[in-house]
Amino acid sequence: MIASEVRALFAVASRPEIVSLAGGMPAVDALPMEAVAATVADVVTRRGAVALQYGSAQGDPELRARICDVMALEGITDAHPDSVVVTAGSQQALDLLTRVFVDPGDVVLTEGPTYVTAINTFAAYQARVVHVPMDDEGLSPAALAQTLARLAADGARVKLLYTVPTFQNPAGITLTPSRRGEVVELCRRAGVLVVEDNPYGLLSFTGAPTRAMRADAPEDVVYLGSFSKTLAPGLRVGWALAPPAVTARLVLAAESAILSQSMFTQLAVERYLATQPWAEQLKGLRELYRERRDAMLGTLAEQMPAGTSWTRPDGGFFVWLTLPDGVDTKAMLARAIAARVAYVPGRGFYADGSGGTSMRLSYCYPPADRVREGVERLARVVRDELALRDTFRS
Amino acid sequence: MIASEVRALFAVASRPEIVSLAGGMPAVDALPMEAVAATVADVVTRRGAVALQYGSAQGDPELRARICDVMALEGITDAHPDSVVVTAGSQQALDLLTRVFVDPGDVVLTEGPTYVTAINTFAAYQARVVHVPMDDEGLSPAALAQTLARLAADGARVKLLYTVPTFQNPAGITLTPSRRGEVVELCRRAGVLVVEDNPYGLLSFTGAPTRAMRADAPEDVVYLGSFSKTLAPGLRVGWALAPPAVTARLVLAAESAILSQSMFTQLAVERYLATQPWAEQLKGLRELYRERRDAMLGTLAEQMPAGTSWTRPDGGFFVWLTLPDGVDTKAMLARAIAARVAYVPGRGFYADGSGGTSMRLSYCYPPADRVREGVERLARVVRDELALRDTFRS
Repeated sequence: MIASEVRALFAVASRPEIVSLAGGMPAVDALPMEAVAATVADVVTRRGAVALQYGSAQGDPELRARICDVMALEGITDAHPDSVVVTAGSQQALDLLTRVFVDPGDVVLTEGPTYVTAINTFAAYQARVVHVPMDDEGLSPAALAQTLARLAADGARVKLLYTVPTFQNPAGITLTPSRRGEVVELCRRAGVLVVEDNPYGLLSFTGAPTRAMRADAPEDVVYLGSFSKTLAPGLRVGWALAPPAVTARLVLAAESAILSQSMFTQLAVERYLATQPWAEQLKGLRELYRERRDAMLGTLAEQMPAGTSWTRPDGGFFVWLTLPDGVDTKAMLARAIAARVAYVPGRGFYADGSGGTSMRLSYCYPPADRVREGVERLARVVRDELALRDTFRS
Repeated sequence: MIASEVRALFAVASRPEIVSLAGGMPAVDALPMEAVAATVADVVTRRGAVALQYGSAQGDPELRARICDVMALEGITDAHPDSVVVTAGSQQALDLLTRVFVDPGDVVLTEGPTYVTAINTFAAYQARVVHVPMDDEGLSPAALAQTLARLAADGARVKLLYTVPTFQNPAGITLTPSRRGEVVELCRRAGVLVVEDNPYGLLSFTGAPTRAMRADAPEDVVYLGSFSKTLAPGLRVGWALAPPAVTARLVLAAESAILSQSMFTQLAVERYLATQPWAEQLKGLRELYRERRDAMLGTLAEQMPAGTSWTRPDGGFFVWLTLPDGVDTKAMLARAIAARVAYVPGRGFYADGSGGTSMRLSYCYPPADRVREGVERLARVVRDELALRDTFRS
């Protein structure tokens, strides 16, 4: 899908009669709004002359220290605030990294499928995106090794492996612990920097957070983090943790891109983390999303016809659903909208035109009963679509 | 100066014993902090589910409508909100424009001297910056015509003219009304898009705001605006007004760069403009900066030795001071810091190594008595420097 189509889809999907399983919007209405309001007012009242002024391109030092505490929850215990660059969401971190590392024609490896806006970012710098397949345990090291060997033989310059290893967007799959070291080692040997994009890592439904790839490979992995899913995307506060030489280049790139981040939203996040029971709130978010995930997986199991398959995420926002051959999820979308349910067709998550029989389903935003209703509607559309396909085939 | 030197300079300049005439920080302490605090809290309380959520890459429609009202103050009466893209400060607008229009090796024309971070942005995209000289009436159309002719003869691809026509950074000079049409016409004929960067336009000391170049050339000028100098830079809210085809490309670029702007800071600005006496506050800012400008120009006239010259801004933040030949303002900076005054050496405002005898002086941030004291200290340093120079020459 091209960007205008995605926008049109989201415009349609936002109509109240439609259950949108399309967007990846977090449930910000679960936030304690009075506490947020008090925090932002307090930042202006107490520190307005700083909060409303220009800041440094690297970001507020106190916030960077707190970000290090957040990353410690995922096993990153050696991070220094000097190695953190605060960015306008982790999207900006990805944009700046690509700017720093990627020349036109360079290869960026990604999972297939991968985060749609990452594909756009790589395209903006004229990178060539090459997908590495996943299975239920995440990115396949064997396929990665083959891909690297093939690209090396072709003389391609492979610069980055972009991966969302935990509760992946769009597939909901998590790279297993044993594979994490393998993937990093393969990339290290090939001179490829690993970019670990981890916006969902703290939204695990099964207990302790997954250990970050960066935790065991500080020199080989740039870690991208975000408060968009654990606090609020409307603040646009994310970050990169990188080796010192990379950090320095990211800071320069950030300066030429936007001069400095918003000091106001940075201090708001810093004060919120300092004064609010954020860990408790995260627990509440995990329960809320787990309930919605359960509603989706339960209804898929009850309602989806034979021949369809889907992933079973242990955290995050997304399920990846694949229909039998011969069904095009983009062509089917109009019928789904008519049946008052929306999803994102799978092809947009690939740079190479794959994904035509798949779709991304999000359970993050609608309440559980609406998720159930949406999946029921979708299942009816799929059954009709398969019946239609069979009619044409016979 | 390279970026690390600039950072070191600003770190030193922020020491309390030093009068900094270096930074371009607006006087945010003049803001009514209680009103700002109430506004931001109100945005969260009333519209938290929107303010804290993702927004569109183009920016909030209500804010874009208010931005059109702001631009009407400078004669732009035909702007439609659909042609506005909200950006993280006008710096991001410049970055995105450069990304959209400039390929490596392309030429960007700028005034000489020009805004230092614009040079960095153009460098990030491997553009070649070619300066066009100014006189007291701003960019010289005759010099622009010559430069365009020379570049055309060389086969260079000239993509943009980047100009700060009103109260220029760093020179404080304003392009005269009669020249504005000439400059646009020359660029139109050469197929060069004019980028009018206008962060200071509403900070005039002489009455009505200067008419924007964009007001008379909607198809040929992209206008960049900002609330950084008229409200608060810590919110990072700026914008571009562009012809529709350019707007569409900017929105796509914004999406791949940062996904969406902060809805929270956008709604905060929108509500602030809607509920506060912003026009009155602007009047107060103009008076405050005029007083500081007067302090600087008065003290320069009293104290600076013969052979020095400087510009006389009618608005904005900056004076451009040029010393006699044989003095290097970068080399002199250490002595100025020792004398407890800081400025920015002139060479950083050129891409070609010019400006060695010049410096930018800012009067925007220190109160008038500190501005006076800073210029007195600087004048002593300059007199000593000239005496030293004469000793070596004799």
